[in-house]
Amino acid sequence: MNQLQLFKKEFDPYIRQYIEQKIKNITKYTKDSFIISYLGYIKTIVLSAGKRIRPYVAYSMYLALGGKETEKVLKFLVSIELFHSFYLVHDDIMDKASLRHSVSTVHKHVADMLKKGERLNDLNHIGNSQAILIGDLLFSWSQEILNLNKDFNQKIAHKAKRLFYEMVDEVTVGQMIDVDITTRKKISKELIDQKTYLKTAGYSFIKPLQIGAALSGNSNKDIEKFCKEFGLRMGMAFQTQDDLLDITSTDEELQKTTSSDKSQHQHTYFTFFKSLDEGKKMIKENFEKAKKLVENFPLGDKNKNKLLNLVEIIEQRTF
Amino acid sequence: MNQLQLFKKEFDPYIRQYIEQKIKNITKYTKDSFIISYLGYIKTIVLSAGKRIRPYVAYSMYLALGGKETEKVLKFLVSIELFHSFYLVHDDIMDKASLRHSVSTVHKHVADMLKKGERLNDLNHIGNSQAILIGDLLFSWSQEILNLNKDFNQKIAHKAKRLFYEMVDEVTVGQMIDVDITTRKKISKELIDQKTYLKTAGYSFIKPLQIGAALSGNSNKDIEKFCKEFGLRMGMAFQTQDDLLDITSTDEELQKTTSSDKSQHQHTYFTFFKSLDEGKKMIKENFEKAKKLVENFPLGDKNKNKLLNLVEIIEQRTF
Repeated sequence: MNQLQLFKKEFDPYIRQYIEQKIKNITKYTKDSFIISYLGYIKTIVLSAGKRIRPYVAYSMYLALGGKETEKVLKFLVSIELFHSFYLVHDDIMDKASLRHSVSTVHKHVADMLKKGERLNDLNHIGNSQAILIGDLLFSWSQEILNLNKDFNQKIAHKAKRLFYEMVDEVTVGQMIDVDITTRKKISKELIDQKTYLKTAGYSFIKPLQIGAALSGNSNKDIEKFCKEFGLRMGMAFQTQDDLLDITSTDEELQKTTSSDKSQHQHTYFTFFKSLDEGKKMIKENFEKAKKLVENFPLGDKNKNKLLNLVEIIEQRTF
Repeated sequence: MNQLQLFKKEFDPYIRQYIEQKIKNITKYTKDSFIISYLGYIKTIVLSAGKRIRPYVAYSMYLALGGKETEKVLKFLVSIELFHSFYLVHDDIMDKASLRHSVSTVHKHVADMLKKGERLNDLNHIGNSQAILIGDLLFSWSQEILNLNKDFNQKIAHKAKRLFYEMVDEVTVGQMIDVDITTRKKISKELIDQKTYLKTAGYSFIKPLQIGAALSGNSNKDIEKFCKEFGLRMGMAFQTQDDLLDITSTDEELQKTTSSDKSQHQHTYFTFFKSLDEGKKMIKENFEKAKKLVENFPLGDKNKNKLLNLVEIIEQRTF
């Protein structure tokens, strides 16, 4: 088991506990078996094979900066993962995807379920509508955890929340660009760079790093710069890995429908500018630079290792 | 100008200011003219002819309980109205509505804009996708206001937030029921009652009343009971009014596509159980009971008037 898998094992019980309590609580509003069953599917999708990369990034930074309150932080980081679940549920509607982490996407699941009964109306549209709502609920739950939490002092919590809302603005604008791009005949490299920065570097690395740093309470003035530079390198490498995996992997390895980027008119570095070899070189260079940034960051060796582990995990990923 | 219109005049500058600052801030992520234009449409829809009923309900309760910090409360209540804007944007996708408050719905606006250019892909689907994202952004902004606010002490703010998240759970489950109902051949009255309770009584009255009460800091033990009973009466009357207006109004009066309830397989009290006269009688009785609840609530006459005004405004509405 690698570090990320160990993390997932430690982290997932916090997600499970929260979701089970929420779903149970919601049955006080209705006992209708269909509504209960759609809500129950939240557990399936959130607890399926998600990798927990973003909370792991935040947690690694928290530990690297000397944070000790591991239980409190893990509970807090459930907000980041539930936000990500929300994001994927809505993303899958936009992508018309039918599979995610080896299970049916929410809109597909609901539509399939309805098609088995004697139902009226456009059931694919109804599936989308229920998935929009289930996504909204996940977003709200992420907010509940973020904002009703009393485990951190007000100043620290306020900073983490501010970063969270910047993250949402960034990733949503990034996704708006991504959606719009699929309709365009010509796209500038500048716009692809903006999309990659917002959707991947910012969302998956820079903001989780900053949130982890904020929670640690460590106010070393070099942290901000490090999060941005290190996160940008990791994000560039990660996005290019993703584009590469989309071309070379099988459905089974990715646990989702592959080559979807091409079929959905997605524009990536590969469909546009680069050869596979160029891409692989770019990935390697970015990871090397990320490692160098960690080496030069004034931390003890043990703490540096938390971040070097993170680089290695991402570097070696096949998912 | 009635009390609600006066309230809107006082309240809207706070919404405008917040949205303008947010949209301006977001241009730092991209200068792409299409993305900027979609984001700019947020201002159009939020500042179009919305009635501000929910913040007005909260504000009336706040004032009735002796609250004095009007500016702080109005700023805080922007969170409720932006949440409502989010809710309508997503609702309009589900309803396939093309008009809301006399302007194009977001998904329609984006699709129409794209159809004017030389674009690829299924542009109605792209319109829906952008509207999902713009709704998500509005949700996040409502959360930012709710949670980065420092105008109230922690205990009061915590209570208001907790109520807010209950409200989101309720209205989302209510909307899930509503969506599912459109596919069913048979529906129980129980399920319609649950829907009305969650989507209208809870969302438009009980929770705003409770939030207004929480912000006032008044901890009179009768408040909780009053909010529930008074809010339920107001909600029952409001929903039946809505169903009635949907049958009897013209598009121009409602500023949206009418008789959509029937065409979308919506089930209301009228499509199912009651005659128009029965409905009108039910509306009148509920407003009378609401007024009686105010009369019996231990408040001074001036404060009672805040709530009686609210009943009258809703009773006389033609929208």
